[in-house]
Amino acid sequence: MASVDVPVALLGYGTVGAAVNRLLTESADDIERATGHRLRVVKALVRDPAKERDYPAADGVLTTDFAEILEDPSIPVVAEVMGGVEPTGGYVLDLLGRGKHVVSANKQLIARRGAELFATASSAGVQLRFEASVCAAIPVIKVLRESLVVSNVHRVLGIVNGTTNFVLTEMEGGKSYDAALAEAQERGFAEADPSDDVSGADAAAKMAILATVAFNSRVELADVDYSGIVSIDALDVAAARQLDMVIRLVGAARLVDGHVDVTVQPAFVDRQHPLAKVDGAFNAVMLQGDAIREITLEGPGAGGIETASAVIADITSVIGTMGTGFLQNDAAWRELPMLPDGESRSPYYVRLHVEDRPGALARVADELAEREISIARLLQHQNGHGAALHVVTHEARAGSLAEALQAVGELADVYARSIPRPVISDRGVVGLGWA
Amino acid sequence: MASVDVPVALLGYGTVGAAVNRLLTESADDIERATGHRLRVVKALVRDPAKERDYPAADGVLTTDFAEILEDPSIPVVAEVMGGVEPTGGYVLDLLGRGKHVVSANKQLIARRGAELFATASSAGVQLRFEASVCAAIPVIKVLRESLVVSNVHRVLGIVNGTTNFVLTEMEGGKSYDAALAEAQERGFAEADPSDDVSGADAAAKMAILATVAFNSRVELADVDYSGIVSIDALDVAAARQLDMVIRLVGAARLVDGHVDVTVQPAFVDRQHPLAKVDGAFNAVMLQGDAIREITLEGPGAGGIETASAVIADITSVIGTMGTGFLQNDAAWRELPMLPDGESRSPYYVRLHVEDRPGALARVADELAEREISIARLLQHQNGHGAALHVVTHEARAGSLAEALQAVGELADVYARSIPRPVISDRGVVGLGWA
Repeated sequence: MASVDVPVALLGYGTVGAAVNRLLTESADDIERATGHRLRVVKALVRDPAKERDYPAADGVLTTDFAEILEDPSIPVVAEVMGGVEPTGGYVLDLLGRGKHVVSANKQLIARRGAELFATASSAGVQLRFEASVCAAIPVIKVLRESLVVSNVHRVLGIVNGTTNFVLTEMEGGKSYDAALAEAQERGFAEADPSDDVSGADAAAKMAILATVAFNSRVELADVDYSGIVSIDALDVAAARQLDMVIRLVGAARLVDGHVDVTVQPAFVDRQHPLAKVDGAFNAVMLQGDAIREITLEGPGAGGIETASAVIADITSVIGTMGTGFLQNDAAWRELPMLPDGESRSPYYVRLHVEDRPGALARVADELAEREISIARLLQHQNGHGAALHVVTHEARAGSLAEALQAVGELADVYARSIPRPVISDRGVVGLGWA
Repeated sequence: MASVDVPVALLGYGTVGAAVNRLLTESADDIERATGHRLRVVKALVRDPAKERDYPAADGVLTTDFAEILEDPSIPVVAEVMGGVEPTGGYVLDLLGRGKHVVSANKQLIARRGAELFATASSAGVQLRFEASVCAAIPVIKVLRESLVVSNVHRVLGIVNGTTNFVLTEMEGGKSYDAALAEAQERGFAEADPSDDVSGADAAAKMAILATVAFNSRVELADVDYSGIVSIDALDVAAARQLDMVIRLVGAARLVDGHVDVTVQPAFVDRQHPLAKVDGAFNAVMLQGDAIREITLEGPGAGGIETASAVIADITSVIGTMGTGFLQNDAAWRELPMLPDGESRSPYYVRLHVEDRPGALARVADELAEREISIARLLQHQNGHGAALHVVTHEARAGSLAEALQAVGELADVYARSIPRPVISDRGVVGLGWA
């Protein structure tokens, strides 16, 4: 088949944009052999063309004028690697409306404005792909959409933020939260302003996108119940170690009786569980479904070159499927309700500081039992003027646990209680063998 | 977009074929929503239509006449799920030659006759896909070909045989080889005749296919240097434990200075290495490349429904890309030489039984040093009338090690030596952070 020349434009030419240009240039022959198409970057929208760049673009490529891309009919596909929600969203809508395929690395844009973007792409008959928006080069979107099309995925568990995973791994090694975060910043794993990472917002956007694709129902950032790692302290880390667990910021998306439940929370993860073994800045996503049991993808979840690799995979997939209607653009073809607040179910860990006298434990156990929460494990030890009580429950309704802890907190015997943390110990699949 | 009806034929209607029919029937709506195409099984070639089936086919579907499939112009795509090399290979060639796309779950066929099959597909302008031939539902072929197109994968490490992994995991727990194998058979993880699994032949076929796709150069079964787990005994298992390692049957494919090296061998794997954490009948494949650093895919590597899921993913990918030329059919567009025998390099473990007297160790060390093999770790303990010497080398040339061990074996001080085993402890990537 004769090779076809494909002019590509970029929105943005920062670390990722420059890496896309470099990889497309250096791998042009490989891509041509694999796809029959020769890709090259012809335009890249930037604010300041004079700025020094990692991998300088050829003369005439950098432009400050969006119209040079929008109005150029020779450009079939544009990669959005500039980030931000505005003006980026407006640009992407304009491009899609003008019949250009778009590939985006922007989780915030997809998680916040997905509905509008996909609707526009569908009416224009073009594709919007977004592999790079979740976990960089780990191809979880393609796998969910193209490989697991009949697998009925009903649960997605992920460590989808490398910064927090690095911080938690360092804290396990004995560092304080502040020292671990400083180390992450020093090694380039955390931004100068790490709020999006440590608050869980970054992971929540990724889980919203994963849930949308896995369950075929739109989940937006606002639908995700998330909390970050700021509240984790040395007591939590020590408690987890005593229970032979580690703390991880876990994103969990579940289909529960036709409802969607998506959370991002620091969780106590059994040391034998695969997610406990994800160290440092790596990411991992476990997909559980009827036909596949459980497939886990692990790799670096960030990085300029890794993200660029995913952007290019999307571009070649667009080029390779233009005009076939494969896949239908928007993964979300149904509207499932979100699970109401408090209905989420999980085993939980909670720590109580109680008066060290007969009856304290019995009263706590009563309050739990009244709300049908049963205790799976219990550890008690002396702690200053009282006792520390580490409680791991069987699966419980989050709302019931909150009520029980409210009641427990009012007992005269209880000085203090920790934030409850979900516990992940099962693999959600029966057995490791095959039928 | 209007839905398009796609008649699908199957070669074979055993466990996998029946599962394909069931999943296509039960998930017809899902597939139609995702791809715009409605797939249904219209013919399935079997030897005995009267045989009882897990999921019986509709009337008129089962046939013993291959021509009913070959000559039916309404069937664009055929899934080969019958296994075997003949007559299967002839059928597949006929179908491709007649302009039908083929999806195959048959590792032996692809690994032995890939060149001929892909050449036929290419001249006929049809696709031959084979996701299900390697590790069932783990989508490693699609990921390598479509997601990692610019990643320059240079090393693939895999646990690609669940039977042997189960047996080795059980041996770690204290079982003998025979007892572990019997347990695997009892639980349905091993065939009544397990020779293909325990000899390493099954893993070798999968590694040949993975190497072909990863390095774009044909590797056939005969090119793979493989050995199985029959030679593993309790002494090996105990030695591994002492070194804080576990034994795994590891497939390794490497690009070395423009040569391809593919081996399947029982390896000593550091307990901290991700491959050491793959338990029971699960499979895992690690892909290391320039742009991605390292991506690992893990999941069930066998099973009827899992394999069927991969077959259907391939069918929908064929349907979705018919006529676009995406991807070029044959991944192997270049011809790289195989690394000559003995040139493979790795750290190795070997165990020697030596006379317990001064100078024995010195003479062994001399023979190694003469061939530029340096010792990374050494453990010595009393063993009956002599001493057992556990040696872990730094990276060494396999041929040099074999020569050294030959010479060592001739020393008067040395009673016996074990088979050398490759050691896997590094991850082959620098750091776990990102740039």
